[in-house]
Amino acid sequence: MVRIGIIGAGTCSQEAYQTAEKLGRLIAERGDTLICGGLGGVMEAAAKGAKSKGGITVGILPGFSAEDANPFIDIPVVTGLSHARNVIVVRSSDVLIAVAGEYGTLSEIAIALKLGKPVIGIGSWNISKDILQTQSPEETINLVDKLIKESRPYDKQD
Amino acid sequence: MVRIGIIGAGTCSQEAYQTAEKLGRLIAERGDTLICGGLGGVMEAAAKGAKSKGGITVGILPGFSAEDANPFIDIPVVTGLSHARNVIVVRSSDVLIAVAGEYGTLSEIAIALKLGKPVIGIGSWNISKDILQTQSPEETINLVDKLIKESRPYDKQD
Amino acid sequence: MVRIGIIGAGTCSQEAYQTAEKLGRLIAERGDTLICGGLGGVMEAAAKGAKSKGGITVGILPGFSAEDANPFIDIPVVTGLSHARNVIVVRSSDVLIAVAGEYGTLSEIAIALKLGKPVIGIGSWNISKDILQTQSPEETINLVDKLIKESRPYDKQD
Amino acid sequence: MVRIGIIGAGTCSQEAYQTAEKLGRLIAERGDTLICGGLGGVMEAAAKGAKSKGGITVGILPGFSAEDANPFIDIPVVTGLSHARNVIVVRSSDVLIAVAGEYGTLSEIAIALKLGKPVIGIGSWNISKDILQTQSPEETINLVDKLIKESRPYDKQD
Repeated sequence: MVRIGIIGAGTCSQEAYQTAEKLGRLIAERGDTLICGGLGGVMEAAAKGAKSKGGITVGILPGFSAEDANPFIDIPVVTGLSHARNVIVVRSSDVLIAVAGEYGTLSEIAIALKLGKPVIGIGSWNISKDILQTQSPEETINLVDKLIKESRPYDKQD
Repeated sequence: MVRIGIIGAGTCSQEAYQTAEKLGRLIAERGDTLICGGLGGVMEAAAKGAKSKGGITVGILPGFSAEDANPFIDIPVVTGLSHARNVIVVRSSDVLIAVAGEYGTLSEIAIALKLGKPVIGIGSWNISKDILQTQSPEETINLVDKLIKESRPYDKQD
Repeated sequence: MVRIGIIGAGTCSQEAYQTAEKLGRLIAERGDTLICGGLGGVMEAAAKGAKSKGGITVGILPGFSAEDANPFIDIPVVTGLSHARNVIVVRSSDVLIAVAGEYGTLSEIAIALKLGKPVIGIGSWNISKDILQTQSPEETINLVDKLIKESRPYDKQD
Repeated sequence: MVRIGIIGAGTCSQEAYQTAEKLGRLIAERGDTLICGGLGGVMEAAAKGAKSKGGITVGILPGFSAEDANPFIDIPVVTGLSHARNVIVVRSSDVLIAVAGEYGTLSEIAIALKLGKPVIGIGSWNISKDILQTQSPEETINLVDKLIKESRPYDKQD
């Protein structure tokens, strides 16, 4: 079982929503666990997709209440840490998939790259060759196993 | 479904281990989710008990690797925040049950009381009338629904 | 130069305010740096006392704005971490002095004891022999050098 | 008095070191406070420059000990939060200046832009028009007052 983090903005285009929802479905069909920030937009879409296929969804929330989670989150983790929770989303994922996204997403991509975790972008920030760019949810998921196998262990701080 | 946090030290007496394991079983039999710090001792015992009855277990880890989790954790949340993760254990739980425990446990009890969350202690810190003292796992679990119903909403910071 | 943390509640009795203010003056007269949570009550009193003697004051704030700091803080550290900032107050101090205080203060005392840092209480939580109890600001400050000399190094996590 | 954050990597080129050191001198000459991550490379250079002109330097450290700070830090803030401390560097600064830098720096730039704080880059990430690009320390510092005056208040979370 792999923990796959989907990162993206709390409000997003219809296209990004559909991409994230499809990714969520594919993750659940693999029997993997979805890690996300637990709010709306890309996070909601991914969780909705995963739940439609019986997957497990974890929402690592920035605020003070489990009620902040979108309705498709099984496990709300209530951090009260605001944007510092982004680091927890990254650390709790074996691989990160960025769907579109703005500066919050960029901060997560940067932390993931800092930690040496694999990052795949689909319509997201294309600012480094360390971010693998893909064009479809299927292509993205097909990369996951390959990336995790090749990646270095994460038990070190940096 | 209720999220029940079990807090206690990473090394503990055999008696505390058995108490936590029994609590874990009772939580899983209710269909509730176990929240804990994910390491050894009381945390391991509670997760072991919950898994023996098919429950769901969440471990909010202080370190940098999911590998730090005890073998009974379904969902490792990797914070990298050291003791600051204690606040997340508390915020992610609807009610806290302290089993024995030392200063780390005391810090969690204090944060829970600060946030107005119900705290039950069993062989743990007895330093305030706000901590309900119980003598057995069964008595403890019987208090949970009553406490949650009476408690104030947690959507405020403090 | 020693970093002395003063911890206590954001609203407090006149007696606690005067005690904290006197402690702040004594800290500044020693040439030491005051670490505190940056808000009102005991935190404000300590900072006010320190500034009256030309000391340096650091306020480690829970919220999102430096404007939250009381007017006697030289260095506002804006964490946005809510109660998780308590851990930073503790880690940034060589010794902790608790003046009165409620559950937030108790969480800081507990973290300090967990980390093996010296804790002095004056009219505060008297729940462990590891907390040295004093009766006056002068007696408190006289203990500081002795405690720091005897304490173990803090470069380990726990 | 303005709090100016200088962000950059813990190991850096000689050119970046000299740039950061010059920035530190200019900040101190203005009477402003330097905020940084407290470690080596760009952080050390900026602090060294500021201290050479009698400035005040704050180091917001990722680890567990004040001893981790470079020798030019007046106020070590010990977070124990690893990379999550980056958010505190950003929140505690009125404006951010990125000198060269890698993924850690990028995460700080991203958080700053997310929060609407002004960001100036000198030989750093040029990935958004929201990052003002400058060519020299003098040009950079000349921008600071203008940027702070124009920026929106930071008392909101995002």
